[in-house]
Amino acid sequence: MSDTSSIDSAGYPVSGRNQVKRLHDRGFYDHDTVHALLDAAMLCHVSYVIDGQPFCTPTFFWREGRRLFWHGSSASRMLRNLAHGEPACLTVTHLDSLVLARSGFNHSADYRSVMAFGKARLVDDPVEKERALVMMVDRLYPQRTAGLRPATAQEIKATAVIAMDIEQASAKIRARGVADDEQDLALPIYAERIPVSMVLGQPEPCRRGVQGVERPAALSAYAAGRPLQDALSEASLTQRMMAAER
Amino acid sequence: MSDTSSIDSAGYPVSGRNQVKRLHDRGFYDHDTVHALLDAAMLCHVSYVIDGQPFCTPTFFWREGRRLFWHGSSASRMLRNLAHGEPACLTVTHLDSLVLARSGFNHSADYRSVMAFGKARLVDDPVEKERALVMMVDRLYPQRTAGLRPATAQEIKATAVIAMDIEQASAKIRARGVADDEQDLALPIYAERIPVSMVLGQPEPCRRGVQGVERPAALSAYAAGRPLQDALSEASLTQRMMAAER
Repeated sequence: MSDTSSIDSAGYPVSGRNQVKRLHDRGFYDHDTVHALLDAAMLCHVSYVIDGQPFCTPTFFWREGRRLFWHGSSASRMLRNLAHGEPACLTVTHLDSLVLARSGFNHSADYRSVMAFGKARLVDDPVEKERALVMMVDRLYPQRTAGLRPATAQEIKATAVIAMDIEQASAKIRARGVADDEQDLALPIYAERIPVSMVLGQPEPCRRGVQGVERPAALSAYAAGRPLQDALSEASLTQRMMAAER
Repeated sequence: MSDTSSIDSAGYPVSGRNQVKRLHDRGFYDHDTVHALLDAAMLCHVSYVIDGQPFCTPTFFWREGRRLFWHGSSASRMLRNLAHGEPACLTVTHLDSLVLARSGFNHSADYRSVMAFGKARLVDDPVEKERALVMMVDRLYPQRTAGLRPATAQEIKATAVIAMDIEQASAKIRARGVADDEQDLALPIYAERIPVSMVLGQPEPCRRGVQGVERPAALSAYAAGRPLQDALSEASLTQRMMAAER
């Protein structure tokens, strides 16, 4: 392992910080792989440090180019501490299967994860912040903000937006299913892979309020029974195409 | 907010580190709530610090009493750095729904999460380590280790086990669905809650190896279509009952 940064024009630079140390064949650094895994997720875990104590906070995020955004209350501990360019690590994990092998050692899981490193900063430019608050909703539900009750000044004030330019990132992927030692295959032991997936349930329309308001067609990506990651990837693509058309 | 620790005999002590700062009604510190959310999960994200840089690593974990365990390669960056009692934060998040409201500000999600704080240490006592390696499998799949090819000395050496006694923890729960401002309910805007759940797929038996080896009855908790969290909670309970009987 080298700590010398190497630059790849189509990928993130690799150094000791983001290099996949174990099982190198599971590591990817190209933008396409990293960004696709990020765009298939809405939930991430962000790590940051306050007085030497690490915190790991679950939150929603979104990506624009090589920049990640997340938000929270202006009063939150995480956001107050990240406001001034503090180092952070944002991680996304897709769990794909449980792997039951013929030895304890080979029990495993299929997964796809991304660790992204950078310095988090508070978005305080009013134009950038307002745009981010729109994207926060429209990235998940394309075109939705245009049909909503507009944000109030108090709501905008109460919401803090954080941006982090990705300095380095790595993706780690296991997609092997059962991978026992060859000599264990002759043993009379049951082994299997159990797929797991985050699935959308039946939408539950709010029963309060105005009758006869139909579900917008733009929400069709969020169909019951569909994997959440597929809906998120589709919504992300739709949002990007619409942004490109404007 | 006070930084003075307060002790509750049925819960974790609360201080500035683990107090739910925002929306206090979402915070819980009692053992029952915290432990149930931990036992319904296998995937966590662990935060730790190396030279001021936070890392957020996804990994599997399990709980025994107020102690959390996770494992990895003896060569991994995380485990080498946590070996000597370093502060860590282990977080578990269950995403339960997406919430589409009538304003951007009230867009949200239902979720249940736990943040657990403590000092991570390497388990190097051979007896404690061997027991942990059994639990690592049997906590997920009760009784499974007894039927597996035994671990080799090399495998045990290659696996590092980390333990962390929970010093403090908090659970944060939102289960409100759509929660719009009262005055927004009169607007002709569609709002809904979309449930999401991590669901088990159809098990895929390994096609290599000995024919006629049936799926053990002990794996019945892992049935296709079932939420993963239900299977994990059941397996955890089964494992505890069996341990109590011995």
